[in-house]
Amino acid sequence: MSIKPIEYRHGVVRMIDQRLLPTEELWLEYSDYQTVAEAIRTMVVRGAPAIGVAAAYGVALGARDIEAETFEDFYAALEEICDVLAATRPTAVNLFWALERMKAKARELTGTPIPEIKAALLDEAHTIAAQDEAINRSMGRHGAELIADGARVLTHCNAGALATGGYGTALGVIRAAVENGKQISVLADETRPFLQGSRLTAWELHKDGIPVTLICDNMAGALMRQGEIDCVIVGADRIAANGDVANKIGTYSVAVLAKEHGIPFYVAAPLSTIDLDIPDGDHIPIEERDTNEVTHCGQSRLAPEGVKVRNPAFDVTPSRLITAIITERGVVRGNYLAGLALLFKETA
Amino acid sequence: MSIKPIEYRHGVVRMIDQRLLPTEELWLEYSDYQTVAEAIRTMVVRGAPAIGVAAAYGVALGARDIEAETFEDFYAALEEICDVLAATRPTAVNLFWALERMKAKARELTGTPIPEIKAALLDEAHTIAAQDEAINRSMGRHGAELIADGARVLTHCNAGALATGGYGTALGVIRAAVENGKQISVLADETRPFLQGSRLTAWELHKDGIPVTLICDNMAGALMRQGEIDCVIVGADRIAANGDVANKIGTYSVAVLAKEHGIPFYVAAPLSTIDLDIPDGDHIPIEERDTNEVTHCGQSRLAPEGVKVRNPAFDVTPSRLITAIITERGVVRGNYLAGLALLFKETA
Repeated sequence: MSIKPIEYRHGVVRMIDQRLLPTEELWLEYSDYQTVAEAIRTMVVRGAPAIGVAAAYGVALGARDIEAETFEDFYAALEEICDVLAATRPTAVNLFWALERMKAKARELTGTPIPEIKAALLDEAHTIAAQDEAINRSMGRHGAELIADGARVLTHCNAGALATGGYGTALGVIRAAVENGKQISVLADETRPFLQGSRLTAWELHKDGIPVTLICDNMAGALMRQGEIDCVIVGADRIAANGDVANKIGTYSVAVLAKEHGIPFYVAAPLSTIDLDIPDGDHIPIEERDTNEVTHCGQSRLAPEGVKVRNPAFDVTPSRLITAIITERGVVRGNYLAGLALLFKETA
Repeated sequence: MSIKPIEYRHGVVRMIDQRLLPTEELWLEYSDYQTVAEAIRTMVVRGAPAIGVAAAYGVALGARDIEAETFEDFYAALEEICDVLAATRPTAVNLFWALERMKAKARELTGTPIPEIKAALLDEAHTIAAQDEAINRSMGRHGAELIADGARVLTHCNAGALATGGYGTALGVIRAAVENGKQISVLADETRPFLQGSRLTAWELHKDGIPVTLICDNMAGALMRQGEIDCVIVGADRIAANGDVANKIGTYSVAVLAKEHGIPFYVAAPLSTIDLDIPDGDHIPIEERDTNEVTHCGQSRLAPEGVKVRNPAFDVTPSRLITAIITERGVVRGNYLAGLALLFKETA
């Protein structure tokens, strides 16, 4: 039973503070949308699907506190709440997807008494959270077939239970392969600067008894050359219509290295991560984060004062480097433009 | 005037503690070979050429304290001292080169009164240190021609003044290009786990007023893809006869990425780093260091307890990925087996 990083109890959203893991397991409580927005911005919660779930609960908390007599007033206030939540992080499209879904639910209920709309929005947030885990299990079933028994799987960042409503995307595929009885071992890139690999991926896999070995990001290439990696699986923050993938900084380098060594490179992501409005990766906005993430470790300074720093949080992997994209509706290969569009047509 | 990390004064070797940079500039003093060996092992001093210089001074200090009446007794004791120093770090060949050179100097003086041999060994250590800086300046002159005016140069680890007797190998080439009036800016990989890039390269370039921007190792690929890197230059810990290069872990990944983007990849190293006795990179011993370097930052734990860790300190870049090797005797390209051998023949 993997961890769920976001819970809702009695009017309060609880989130495990992912900045403190693995040394401290602290659950923080949120009862208004402003603090949820701040939690997303400061990475108490991170990972594209988890950001979507947190944002949905943020909208539900915000909606609850709206004082409005008419739907128009209510909806105007709801849009302001969504705007605040939308301004937290630019790259993960699940954030905008969840906000749109919450607004659509409200619009659907135009004319319904406002207390009922508020209750329906909380239900919608619960549904988004529950569906996210179910989607990951479905993705796991599709993806597990791609992972051979005995495989040594490299992953980058944390696309695990902690990054989602539960179970995980990339790590969900690994969990499903393990549940199918396969012997899988994981190599986890530590993932500088925020160390999601050492702090989060190593923690949740170790907790679940899945063999995991931690490496620095710059070691993956040498291990591939020595034949110690059989495949790569990562999550995604946004996938463009042509299959280009924005994911944690360093993903692109891993994809180039995998290609150089003839190693399959898989991306596991739900449909809510696919943004058909964006034609290719060059159009995906890439967040630059605070330079302190690079120059400091906790309070300790690692670099000289005054030195310039770059800190892009994501990069784009062109679809030509991607062996397959694993979704809850199946595995897409080859012509991503057609294949991804088809996934959405199947909904209708 | 770049820093010199090793000095000798009045019977004492002084080394700046490179583990404490950039936040603290502490000079440690050594008056016997055992503590010099420990300083090399624990990375008070690091960088292949600097390790060679430190080892030479270690031999000189050890020789001074030998109590022997005959050359045979003296030389046997000298060999024991060299064995202790040789056991500190396995990859950088400059260590073994310096020890051999010190032993050869002693053998050359068979029959000379022992106090004179001791004095000659100290002189030889001074010569190794002074020659190393002169060699780097010569390498800089040859290499600077390869760096275009306005170039944005990526470097990995620290192959600077701190890694040598002074001036630096890779950073020596950059310094020489700057001295020639070229506008050069440097991107420095932070170089996990020991952070030689953020702690040392950023520090010494910033101190010298050469524009430097710090990035995490996993960002180099994305910046190459965006056209922000014009060439790569790194040092080496050992170069095999066929031109394969052992250097700091992560160098291989940078070389693969450079090839993918059509970016020149240069290695700058003195002849003392070239090991013609080793046919190719697969025969170079690669040191695995303590896992704490990966799991901790100072006293702070970054990874869960009990998680497995890999920590190879070096990797091997095959010569096919290397655009040119820059030495004090000129630039070698193409057929490294012939080209490197020729450099040594020019000595004779």
